[in-house]
Amino acid sequence: MAANVIDGGQVRNKQVLLKDFVTGFPKESDMLFTTSSVNMKLPEDSNGVLVKNLYLSCDPYMRIPASGAVGQLVGQFAKLMGCYVVGSAGSKEKVDLLKSKLGFDEAFNYKEETDLDAALKRHFPGGIDIYFENVGGKMLDAVLLNMRIHGRIAVCGMISQYNLEEPQGVHSLMNLVYKRIRMEGLLSFDYYHLYTKFLEMMIPQIKEGKIVYVEDIAQGLESGPSALVGLFSGRNVGKQVIAVAPQ
Amino acid sequence: MAANVIDGGQVRNKQVLLKDFVTGFPKESDMLFTTSSVNMKLPEDSNGVLVKNLYLSCDPYMRIPASGAVGQLVGQFAKLMGCYVVGSAGSKEKVDLLKSKLGFDEAFNYKEETDLDAALKRHFPGGIDIYFENVGGKMLDAVLLNMRIHGRIAVCGMISQYNLEEPQGVHSLMNLVYKRIRMEGLLSFDYYHLYTKFLEMMIPQIKEGKIVYVEDIAQGLESGPSALVGLFSGRNVGKQVIAVAPQ
Repeated sequence: MAANVIDGGQVRNKQVLLKDFVTGFPKESDMLFTTSSVNMKLPEDSNGVLVKNLYLSCDPYMRIPASGAVGQLVGQFAKLMGCYVVGSAGSKEKVDLLKSKLGFDEAFNYKEETDLDAALKRHFPGGIDIYFENVGGKMLDAVLLNMRIHGRIAVCGMISQYNLEEPQGVHSLMNLVYKRIRMEGLLSFDYYHLYTKFLEMMIPQIKEGKIVYVEDIAQGLESGPSALVGLFSGRNVGKQVIAVAPQ
Repeated sequence: MAANVIDGGQVRNKQVLLKDFVTGFPKESDMLFTTSSVNMKLPEDSNGVLVKNLYLSCDPYMRIPASGAVGQLVGQFAKLMGCYVVGSAGSKEKVDLLKSKLGFDEAFNYKEETDLDAALKRHFPGGIDIYFENVGGKMLDAVLLNMRIHGRIAVCGMISQYNLEEPQGVHSLMNLVYKRIRMEGLLSFDYYHLYTKFLEMMIPQIKEGKIVYVEDIAQGLESGPSALVGLFSGRNVGKQVIAVAPQ
């Protein structure tokens, strides 16, 4: 991460640097915040452009490729398509947000459930048709036990597994056979050619308030390390963004 | 399992009975072979039919639903479709069979490989496009590490897992995301409506010797328990069948 504050030609260059290779959960102490000063004035005859960064995105894929930002959207899309949507989140605040602001039918706090299988059976007495997988580990095991025949699992990420030395094993994969489940991974960059079409569809929905986009804005590059670390404990509510300069 | 030997109206009824609920690998001592005698002569005015069983099928799905008989066929189909086909089997005899009789391009004995990942990298330096999953556990983990982008995994069964109290965990599922892999379970009875079409396609191929079907025939119902137990150690070569009566 790096951001510049322009003051004439002289630039105060803020930087967040990794001290070393990170194993396990990233900690704030793995990162170093530092400032230096450089001259970034363009020569008089230059056709160059100086770009002022206003915001940085802060995502789990800064650790490995995945997309942590799409979960909140997908539930809303499913709702628009007429699905019964149940969300799982890691705090009361997020559960309330899913139900009140994002319009999910139900949501539960997985950290309060001692038996995820029982929680899913309570919320889906008839089983699950579609699961958007962004968690992995024990949640995926519990979901596999509760999928319906010919159910589908879109695998976007497995955030619970990224910082483990050895990922947890998934033990219920035979349910793929019993229930003829399709499970398929996806990466957003395969779909960049659809981005214009996506915006055409999304913008009216956002303007009409049918799709809500929740951001968690941390102020200043200094807050970068704690914002990144917070992603893995689920401290952020909505998409994590860092405001690095006033507009 | 039950089979009858008809002698006039008097029938010697052979039976293989389970002594108790089986946990772990089934053992011959879990089963009891017994004989009783019953009169099964049809009344004179009956329109009933007495059926003489000649063969019994012996499959892993006698323990849980799966199909252990299709693996040898699928590799041959893939070969007919122009694929480069590598088989994995648990004995030298089977490896030779796959290469010499079934026409696989390569085959290896997974019991002789201390590092399955390395074995797969040797056989598939460019990665695996299609995997027919019938094993589970560590083999699936190694395969996931070696799949190609947009690869596909048809999940028919996971025989290595059926007799474990707790199935082994699969740890490499994030490869579904990295490589956008599709993994889908199947059960043969979803496709029974295609059986006539299947035979129309298969019979000419078998007559022309392009598809070979290998059977392992055990003689007599008495051999049923050992044939069933043998499936899980991989003793059978080809589809396990029990001949219960002369034709």
